[in-house]
Amino acid sequence: MANNKPWVLILMGSDSDAEVMSGAAAALDELGVPYEFLVASAHRSPERAKNAITDAEANGAACFIAGAGMAAHLPGVVASFTTKPVIGVPLASGALNGVDALYAIVQMPPGIPVASVAIGGARNAGILAAQIIATADADVAAKLKEQRGAMAEQVAAKSKKVEKSTRK
Amino acid sequence: MANNKPWVLILMGSDSDAEVMSGAAAALDELGVPYEFLVASAHRSPERAKNAITDAEANGAACFIAGAGMAAHLPGVVASFTTKPVIGVPLASGALNGVDALYAIVQMPPGIPVASVAIGGARNAGILAAQIIATADADVAAKLKEQRGAMAEQVAAKSKKVEKSTRK
Amino acid sequence: MANNKPWVLILMGSDSDAEVMSGAAAALDELGVPYEFLVASAHRSPERAKNAITDAEANGAACFIAGAGMAAHLPGVVASFTTKPVIGVPLASGALNGVDALYAIVQMPPGIPVASVAIGGARNAGILAAQIIATADADVAAKLKEQRGAMAEQVAAKSKKVEKSTRK
Amino acid sequence: MANNKPWVLILMGSDSDAEVMSGAAAALDELGVPYEFLVASAHRSPERAKNAITDAEANGAACFIAGAGMAAHLPGVVASFTTKPVIGVPLASGALNGVDALYAIVQMPPGIPVASVAIGGARNAGILAAQIIATADADVAAKLKEQRGAMAEQVAAKSKKVEKSTRK
Amino acid sequence: MANNKPWVLILMGSDSDAEVMSGAAAALDELGVPYEFLVASAHRSPERAKNAITDAEANGAACFIAGAGMAAHLPGVVASFTTKPVIGVPLASGALNGVDALYAIVQMPPGIPVASVAIGGARNAGILAAQIIATADADVAAKLKEQRGAMAEQVAAKSKKVEKSTRK
Amino acid sequence: MANNKPWVLILMGSDSDAEVMSGAAAALDELGVPYEFLVASAHRSPERAKNAITDAEANGAACFIAGAGMAAHLPGVVASFTTKPVIGVPLASGALNGVDALYAIVQMPPGIPVASVAIGGARNAGILAAQIIATADADVAAKLKEQRGAMAEQVAAKSKKVEKSTRK
Amino acid sequence: MANNKPWVLILMGSDSDAEVMSGAAAALDELGVPYEFLVASAHRSPERAKNAITDAEANGAACFIAGAGMAAHLPGVVASFTTKPVIGVPLASGALNGVDALYAIVQMPPGIPVASVAIGGARNAGILAAQIIATADADVAAKLKEQRGAMAEQVAAKSKKVEKSTRK
Amino acid sequence: MANNKPWVLILMGSDSDAEVMSGAAAALDELGVPYEFLVASAHRSPERAKNAITDAEANGAACFIAGAGMAAHLPGVVASFTTKPVIGVPLASGALNGVDALYAIVQMPPGIPVASVAIGGARNAGILAAQIIATADADVAAKLKEQRGAMAEQVAAKSKKVEKSTRK
Repeated sequence: MANNKPWVLILMGSDSDAEVMSGAAAALDELGVPYEFLVASAHRSPERAKNAITDAEANGAACFIAGAGMAAHLPGVVASFTTKPVIGVPLASGALNGVDALYAIVQMPPGIPVASVAIGGARNAGILAAQIIATADADVAAKLKEQRGAMAEQVAAKSKKVEKSTRK
Repeated sequence: MANNKPWVLILMGSDSDAEVMSGAAAALDELGVPYEFLVASAHRSPERAKNAITDAEANGAACFIAGAGMAAHLPGVVASFTTKPVIGVPLASGALNGVDALYAIVQMPPGIPVASVAIGGARNAGILAAQIIATADADVAAKLKEQRGAMAEQVAAKSKKVEKSTRK
Repeated sequence: MANNKPWVLILMGSDSDAEVMSGAAAALDELGVPYEFLVASAHRSPERAKNAITDAEANGAACFIAGAGMAAHLPGVVASFTTKPVIGVPLASGALNGVDALYAIVQMPPGIPVASVAIGGARNAGILAAQIIATADADVAAKLKEQRGAMAEQVAAKSKKVEKSTRK
Repeated sequence: MANNKPWVLILMGSDSDAEVMSGAAAALDELGVPYEFLVASAHRSPERAKNAITDAEANGAACFIAGAGMAAHLPGVVASFTTKPVIGVPLASGALNGVDALYAIVQMPPGIPVASVAIGGARNAGILAAQIIATADADVAAKLKEQRGAMAEQVAAKSKKVEKSTRK
Repeated sequence: MANNKPWVLILMGSDSDAEVMSGAAAALDELGVPYEFLVASAHRSPERAKNAITDAEANGAACFIAGAGMAAHLPGVVASFTTKPVIGVPLASGALNGVDALYAIVQMPPGIPVASVAIGGARNAGILAAQIIATADADVAAKLKEQRGAMAEQVAAKSKKVEKSTRK
Repeated sequence: MANNKPWVLILMGSDSDAEVMSGAAAALDELGVPYEFLVASAHRSPERAKNAITDAEANGAACFIAGAGMAAHLPGVVASFTTKPVIGVPLASGALNGVDALYAIVQMPPGIPVASVAIGGARNAGILAAQIIATADADVAAKLKEQRGAMAEQVAAKSKKVEKSTRK
Repeated sequence: MANNKPWVLILMGSDSDAEVMSGAAAALDELGVPYEFLVASAHRSPERAKNAITDAEANGAACFIAGAGMAAHLPGVVASFTTKPVIGVPLASGALNGVDALYAIVQMPPGIPVASVAIGGARNAGILAAQIIATADADVAAKLKEQRGAMAEQVAAKSKKVEKSTRK
Repeated sequence: MANNKPWVLILMGSDSDAEVMSGAAAALDELGVPYEFLVASAHRSPERAKNAITDAEANGAACFIAGAGMAAHLPGVVASFTTKPVIGVPLASGALNGVDALYAIVQMPPGIPVASVAIGGARNAGILAAQIIATADADVAAKLKEQRGAMAEQVAAKSKKVEKSTRK
């Protein structure tokens, strides 16, 4: 039954984060990994956040992606309620432009890891989640290899557009 | 008499700070806390600043909010003239975009505390001032609980606008 | 009954933070404010942290102080479970020496304030908590004024030790 | 056959990184996950690095951990040669104390993710690798849950050592 | 034969870097130094990058310029495959605006140097490459001296446009 | 004779700095201090810079203001050729937005001081130069006191525009 | 009468700053400039600070040096009470090691300049004060020129100790 | 005649920099490149610095290495007096630990390049200088290739000391 397929819960602290975070969803779509995508603030709705996380784990979520800006606690809060891999996406908002979110996500203390990607790196969060799910899913693993091959070809194609030589 | 009701003095270093700082006033309005709102530069008008602070304390101000940018000394100057709680709001202006103001506000030496909120965090300064006043005012305390409950509901409502699932 | 006296809950993320955080306790002792002092990690023991916070509020805690290092989520987590004032103390630990903790504490999003003091500023957190409690406690207010007067005298006394003039 | 059990390749750029990186090995030992631990510089021995990575993938490595300091390219280089999950550990060495390594590891461009942990966060890298392997290994998943439960108990036990109350 | 003339390989990680990097090409054009200009990602096309570098060295490239943003590994990867001088150009892209690229390029570990220029400093990379080639090419050396002389004249000319005196 | 009146040499590294640096000239105009205003790059025209400085000192310049961006060496170069006070103005240009210029100006080694003002702080550089000249010029001293008095009045006037009270 | 000789008031926020700040005093001693040296905290003793500044100006102080660490407001407070030149010395104390003090001193808003020297740059503050006083004192001006000449000789002498050539 | 052999001038701003900068000399010794090693401050002895640079260029110096700390102007000053390649070594001294020197060296404006290596990266400066000289010296080029080969072997040897496998 399709419901048994491992999936990813994509959480974000505010609906204003949805546009950037949809990059994670798009990457999972490309790689054939199902997901749920919702808003749950660590600070304004801690119970909702906790319930979303524990319900997801109970319903087969294999991996979590959490995006947040400023004092970005959401990924750490997710990690405190699950032992599944948690990927944090620092978002650039406010005067510090994401350095605050990066430090608040990546500098987790020993015992409770969060896997941080780049500031605004939602697409890579999606690919990383697929790599994790590919540990137990050969289809996703194959799609990842295909995607990687295509990237190398794109680099060559894009180079053609700007290549230049002044050697005679 | 209404004049006996504890109130908040909101100070800022320049009239150009008034727009951001009005976020503090708006939060106090929502929570039913009276305030005065005025400009007094720590550097260009030190006597005016001192008088505003000492007059306010004499007239029942229970808490101070001071917003300033760059070498943001105003909150520390307020704190040097009162033993009431002082909340500092670092403002993003100039090339360093508020990191200078943050350090100049939050890094107070032992003995004279200033409570710093986020860069540009005037709204939170207003809520924090209300939380302080709620220590002795049950009405404000009740409004804070209501406001918090409403926030959690708003998160759920906003989530609905962007929620998505690709699980079948 | 003494139990009705407002008090402060001092929380920290690890027992290794106890030495620095005892500066807050010492300040409260000087100012005659009772407190409880305990460890509750936001990440390793989220249920314990939540229970400590909600129990404290139910038992008359008027204010919270939370100290944490690195991705310092504890103050924000406390703030998510109470509408009482929450003071955050960023602690210098690890390679970033407290800048990470400062950003993770001070850059709270709108709606849920945390009052940040300086990196390692536990003593000021204690004084600030007393200032908040003094809103409804004239004894504490009087002690704060005394303490402030004594500080000014100490400055003069300390100056004597290093003063020098080469004017004739 | 034991050789079929998924394992982790732990790489580091220099033998001077071995002490910190052994924290990852220790975490994997606790959680029953096999690993290989070796040095391969991205810059001084690029062929050796590439061979170590591609051989490991061919021999069943399910996940990679790479630790490096300064212009820390090793995790990105690993990621360029595999589609398995790659965890990067920024190491604090040199005048910038690990901020350089953090930025060089976490700020990967779209397409090639690296999962960054904290500066010096080797232990969390090990736990994260185990969480990834647990996607397809129920024994490791169970050990992670046990470990998490024990952490919460340790927090309570450590708290006892420093707890204090001045409420009467 | 013209093919024997030493030349410069200008590499960049993405075609979106071509506009900034063309500043290096323009400087080389002015100074009469031939070059090739192409895209080769260190992460998305590591084999292509390696081949471009080793082919170039085999075909008489005397010096390399590599521009990259974010976790800017390309210059270090170039340096790992050649003992010719490698010039790195940190590019400002993403939330950290080039500080990440600067650290990832300039903080190379002992043994494998990369010569870093300013963030976005493609023009200086071109001039530096010409200075290196001038070590064995008197024509280029002469053009560099001419260019330098012209710069001093331009400063004087530009000064005229804004000079002002209020001395009487 | 008017030529004997002490004056200020305002230097900048590029004509593109003239707009910001004209803030220093305007301040000197207001305070009745004569000046010369010209471009001289420390790097592109070192001889011109040296000559401008030594000629100015020989012709009665009492103080120097030098503005520069990025690796802002001009103020230090001025200071190396004179024992008159040198004021440096860090300019925000390029990806680091003036932090580079600030560090390159303010962090002078022992023996050769440069007086740094804020990033982009040309107006304050002009006022500071006038304060220095006022050491030996009572007219300028009087104008500075007048200006200061007017500032305090302006603060009060500007406050009126935004003042608000919700106390009844 | 000796009392008419212009002098410098050296202020610092704490007696613990006296050791570093004595570098300013030593420089003034070398250059024959009289000074007074005392402690006056901007935050713990604002009245004492104000009185020290206004008394000093009334008694012929020609220039002020103020050293402070963390949220270093003292130099700005001095500048708010005088139109004489004010030199600020950021001191490295606490977790941010002087970056906080630098920003709090150098980033003064338009109208009230402070001349910042390097973090810990007390010696340069003393020399700069002497340069300012030399505007009206030919003896000090002559001593500054002598000191500068001696510096160049010291550089040559120190070079001898480490010079080496491997050219034959 | 041996005097015709291209050589490197290694300059530093202070004799206290000699220990770190000797890493550049050691690298040149290993690679058979002659050098001169001396102190010349850009600020305290500008004439000496200029003379050392122009004399060296007249006497066959092919490349310059300049190391400096804090507001590190020396490399830029060298570059302003020569069109030979100039390598800058930022040195970690003072409270900012080399970030100031890095920015002051690497952020050179268009027209006058300086090739920056890592903070404290004197050894890489020596290797880079040899790579530049190898453009016209096949012996040095051969030694560089040898050195590189040896590095890869050392990595393998060092790995042996810490390698470990828990796979059965």
